[in-house]
Amino acid sequence: MFNGAILVGAAERTGGEPFFAVDPSTGAKGDIAFHNASTADVADACALADAAFESFSTLSPETRASFLEAVADQILEIGDLLITTAMSETGLPRGRLEGERGRTVGQLRLFAAYVRQGDWLDATIDKALPERTPLPRSDLRRVNQSVGPVAVFGASNFPLAFSVAGGDTASAFAAGSPVVVKGHPAHPGTGELVARAIAAAVKASGLHEGVFSYLPGTTNDLGGALVADPRIKAVGFTGSRGGGIALMKIAANREEPIPVYSEMSSINPVVLLPGALAARAEALGTAFVGSLSLFAGQFCTNPGMVIALDSPDLDRFVASAAEALSANQPHVMLTPGIHAAYEKGVEALAGAEGVTTVARGAEAEGVNLAQSALFATSGEQFRTNPALSHEVFGSSSILVKCATIEEVIATIAQMEGQLTATLQMDESDNDNAAKLLPTLSRKVGRVLANGWPTGVEVTHAMVHGGPFPSTSDGRTTSVGTLAMMRFLRPVCYQDVVDAVLPPALQAANPWKLNRRMEGKLELAQ
Amino acid sequence: MFNGAILVGAAERTGGEPFFAVDPSTGAKGDIAFHNASTADVADACALADAAFESFSTLSPETRASFLEAVADQILEIGDLLITTAMSETGLPRGRLEGERGRTVGQLRLFAAYVRQGDWLDATIDKALPERTPLPRSDLRRVNQSVGPVAVFGASNFPLAFSVAGGDTASAFAAGSPVVVKGHPAHPGTGELVARAIAAAVKASGLHEGVFSYLPGTTNDLGGALVADPRIKAVGFTGSRGGGIALMKIAANREEPIPVYSEMSSINPVVLLPGALAARAEALGTAFVGSLSLFAGQFCTNPGMVIALDSPDLDRFVASAAEALSANQPHVMLTPGIHAAYEKGVEALAGAEGVTTVARGAEAEGVNLAQSALFATSGEQFRTNPALSHEVFGSSSILVKCATIEEVIATIAQMEGQLTATLQMDESDNDNAAKLLPTLSRKVGRVLANGWPTGVEVTHAMVHGGPFPSTSDGRTTSVGTLAMMRFLRPVCYQDVVDAVLPPALQAANPWKLNRRMEGKLELAQ
Repeated sequence: MFNGAILVGAAERTGGEPFFAVDPSTGAKGDIAFHNASTADVADACALADAAFESFSTLSPETRASFLEAVADQILEIGDLLITTAMSETGLPRGRLEGERGRTVGQLRLFAAYVRQGDWLDATIDKALPERTPLPRSDLRRVNQSVGPVAVFGASNFPLAFSVAGGDTASAFAAGSPVVVKGHPAHPGTGELVARAIAAAVKASGLHEGVFSYLPGTTNDLGGALVADPRIKAVGFTGSRGGGIALMKIAANREEPIPVYSEMSSINPVVLLPGALAARAEALGTAFVGSLSLFAGQFCTNPGMVIALDSPDLDRFVASAAEALSANQPHVMLTPGIHAAYEKGVEALAGAEGVTTVARGAEAEGVNLAQSALFATSGEQFRTNPALSHEVFGSSSILVKCATIEEVIATIAQMEGQLTATLQMDESDNDNAAKLLPTLSRKVGRVLANGWPTGVEVTHAMVHGGPFPSTSDGRTTSVGTLAMMRFLRPVCYQDVVDAVLPPALQAANPWKLNRRMEGKLELAQ
Repeated sequence: MFNGAILVGAAERTGGEPFFAVDPSTGAKGDIAFHNASTADVADACALADAAFESFSTLSPETRASFLEAVADQILEIGDLLITTAMSETGLPRGRLEGERGRTVGQLRLFAAYVRQGDWLDATIDKALPERTPLPRSDLRRVNQSVGPVAVFGASNFPLAFSVAGGDTASAFAAGSPVVVKGHPAHPGTGELVARAIAAAVKASGLHEGVFSYLPGTTNDLGGALVADPRIKAVGFTGSRGGGIALMKIAANREEPIPVYSEMSSINPVVLLPGALAARAEALGTAFVGSLSLFAGQFCTNPGMVIALDSPDLDRFVASAAEALSANQPHVMLTPGIHAAYEKGVEALAGAEGVTTVARGAEAEGVNLAQSALFATSGEQFRTNPALSHEVFGSSSILVKCATIEEVIATIAQMEGQLTATLQMDESDNDNAAKLLPTLSRKVGRVLANGWPTGVEVTHAMVHGGPFPSTSDGRTTSVGTLAMMRFLRPVCYQDVVDAVLPPALQAANPWKLNRRMEGKLELAQ
C-alpha cells in the first residue's frame, strides 16, 4: 500500500505541498495526497547515503547480489496492486506493464548474476619486480569501487523499468552505490510502492538504512538540490533534453563537478535500402507503423525519422505506411503535459516549409489521445532546417527522401547523436550498408539491421546510449550490465600488504575472480 | 632539427606572433622564433583530424600497434639533440631526461602490445535466441571504438612523458583517435622535435596526415579554440587547477559538451603510522626529503603533506627531515612563472596563522632556484584553513600533527580528492591502516604503503587519477593501459550480418580476441 509519504532511509515523512496523481485516460485526480520532499529531506537522505557508503560499497559480491534479488522478490510481492496502480497513473495497458515488471525484475536478477561473477571489478595485478634495473618495480593492484552515492531521476514512460527500481538504480546498487531517487510525479503511487519494496529489501538484508531513500516531488528545485548536494557523486536521469541539460549544468557548476548520465532525445533514423524496399516495401510500411505507434510512440527509441532513396519502391512503402497509419487508433499519452507537447510538435512539423503531411492516425473522442502522424520532406530541406530533426516525443515520424546513397550519408553525418540507427537491408544492400556503417557508428550507440529500434534487450552487449544529445555521455549505456561502469572508478594499491588489501586483490583470490595478471586475463578456477 | 614551425597534418606553417624558449637556469632567451598557431590553424588541424578518423579508427590492432612502435623509434632517432634541447629548456638534468625518454618510448611500446592483445575492444556477444518466448531475442554484439579526434595539452614538468608524445597522446592513438597537440611554450624546441618524430611515423606508416597536428602557442585563446572546435570529442590536459577548470568550462558549454580529462592539483598526504615511526623515524625523515625535493619537487605526486600522531617518535622524524632539508641544495625550476608561484605559495604558508616553519633548504646564488620548505601545523588548524591544503607546486610540504588516529581520519575525510595517499606502516600498524583505508580509497586514485608517491609506473594496474580536483574525472587514469578507456565508447550491433560487422565481432574472430560470450569471458585460442 502507499500513503504519499517521503522515505528518508527507514523513516516515513510527510510535509511540503501536496500533489496528486492524474489518470491520463480520464483526466481525473487521485485521492491520495503525495508529499513534496523538501531540501531538508534531500540533505538528510544524502547524509544517510554517505553514512551507508562504506559498508554497502564493500559488501561481498554474494551479499550484494542477494540484495538485488531481494529487491526483485519484494517488487513481485506487491502483486497486482502495482499493475493496477501503474495502469491508472500512466494509461498504459496491463500487458505492457506486466511485461515491464518482468523486465524490471529480470534486470535486477541479471545484475545480481553479473555482480556475483565479478568481472566488473576488473581486478588487475602487476607483481613486484624486485630485480628490475635500474629500479625495482613495486607490486601494483587495481580494482573498481563505487564512485559514491548516486541520485536517480526516473522517466515517465517506463514507470517500472526506468523509474524507482529501474536500470539506473539497479546498476548503481550493483556497483555498490547507495541511491537517492527523485520520484517522478507522473506515477507517484507506483513509485512509492516500488520504493517501499526496496526499503523492505534493505531492511530484510540487514543493510544500512541509508542505502536507499525516495524523495517524491513536482519541483525542479528538489531535483536541483539533490544534484547539488556534495555527497552525491553521480546522477542518472532519463527524460527531456531541457531537463537533462539543466541537471548537467548544475553538476558542472558544483564545487566538485560530477558526472550526469542523462538520456534525453533521439529520433532514431531508419534507413530503407533499395534491396529491402524492392523485396518488401509494403511489409516494411506496416511494420514501421507498428513500431511508430506502439503505446503512442512514447519510447526514446521511437523511429522518428525514415530516410531512403526516392523511387517507386519507396512510394509503395509510403502507401502502405499511410494506409496502416490512417487506420491507427489513438492511444492515451502518459500525461497531459506530454500530450500537449506532442500536439505542438506535430503542428510545427505540419506547418514547416517543404514538409508534407503523408497521413494522420484515426481521430477519436477522449482526453490526452495521440493521433499518429507521418510527414515527408526532401534531404535538402531536412539538412537546411534543424527543427525538422528535433524529437517529437510520441508517434510522429518524418520521411526524408534523398537522391543518392551519398546524400543519405551526408544527411546522417550532419545529424546530432542518436540512440539508434536502423538499416532495412537485403543481401544486395551489403555494399551500401558497409558504406553507411562508419557514419552510423559515429552517430549512435546501437546499429540495427532489419528490426525496429523500440525493443531494448537487457543483456551484456546492449548499448542504450549514444553521442550527445541522445545522452549526455556517449561513452556509456543505461541498459545492460555495462551500465554498472558508470558508477565505478579504479583504485590502485601499491605494495599494500595482503592483510589490508581489498579481498578482490588478495593473493588467495577469495572471491574467485577472473583477474588480469601482467596484462593477461586469467580465468578463475 | 627544429625551426619553430606549426605542423598542420603534413604541412609546415609559420605566422602569428613569435615566441622564444627560455633557459630557466640562466634566464637566457633562445635564438629560434617559434610561431604561435592561429585559430585558422586550429580549424584546419581539426578538419584534417576529422577526415583521418574513419581510416585511423578502424585500423587493425596490428597496424595501429606498429604505428605506435614507429613513433617510439622515431623519437629515439632524434638522438642526443632531444636530450640537450630539453635540458636547456627545462633545467632538468641529463639523467632525468634520458630516463623520461625511456619511459616515453616504453609507454608507446606498452600501448602497442596492449593494442595488439585487444582486450580494450571489450568484444561482447549475446547470440540470438530465436526460440525464446514470448519474444525471440536478437543477436547483439558490442565493441569499443574511438570517441573521435582528441586534443592534448602537454605539461611543463614532463617535457617528454606528459607532453607531445606522452601518455595522453599515446593512449589516444592507441584508442584510434587522431590527435591535435597544443604545444607547451615552456619547451617548444623539445615539443617540435617530438612532433616531427610523430609526423614522420605517420608518413612512414602510410596513414592519413590528419592523424596528428602540432599547434605551439602561448595564449589561452589558442587552447580555448581547440577545445571549442566541434570536431574535437575529448581533451587530455595536465597542468594547473585554473587551466584545467577553464578548459572544463569551455567543454561543458559547447553545443555538444565533451569530456575533459585534466590532471590538476594534489598534495598527496603521507600518513606516518606509529609502528613505522617507532621503528625508523630518522630513515623516514631522510627518505621523505629525498622524495619532496627531487627535481625541485615538480611532480603532481609530490608529498606536499605529512600527517601523523604527535609523539616523541614524530619529533625524531621532524629532526631528521629538518636536518636533511637544511642541507638540501636548491634546484632550478622549470620556468620563471613556476618559480614565482612557488615563492608566493611558500611565503603564504610561512605567514599563515598557526603554521610554523620547520626548516628551509640551503640558499644559493642563481635564478629560478627553489629553496625547499617544510612547515608544521595542528590538525585543527589544517581543517579550519582550506588554504593550507592547496598545492604549492614545488618542494614544499606541511606536517599536520594529530592527537588520535580518528583525528587523522577526520582530517583526510575533509580533504579534497588527491592523486595518491601513502601509508608508512609496519605490521603493528595493520589495524590502523585497515581503519584508514576506506577513507583513503574514497579520496585518492592510488594508495601506497612504504614507498613515496613520486614514482609512477606505467603498467596495467596503475591509476594516475583521483577524485576532483586532483583530476577532473576520478573514473579514469592518465597513466597505464587503462588510460585508453578515456577515448573509447561502446557501439552495439543488432542482427547485423557478418559481412558488414566490424572484424572484432565477426563469427570467425579474425583478430583472435578474448571475447565475452553470454557474459562469460572466453580466451582466444
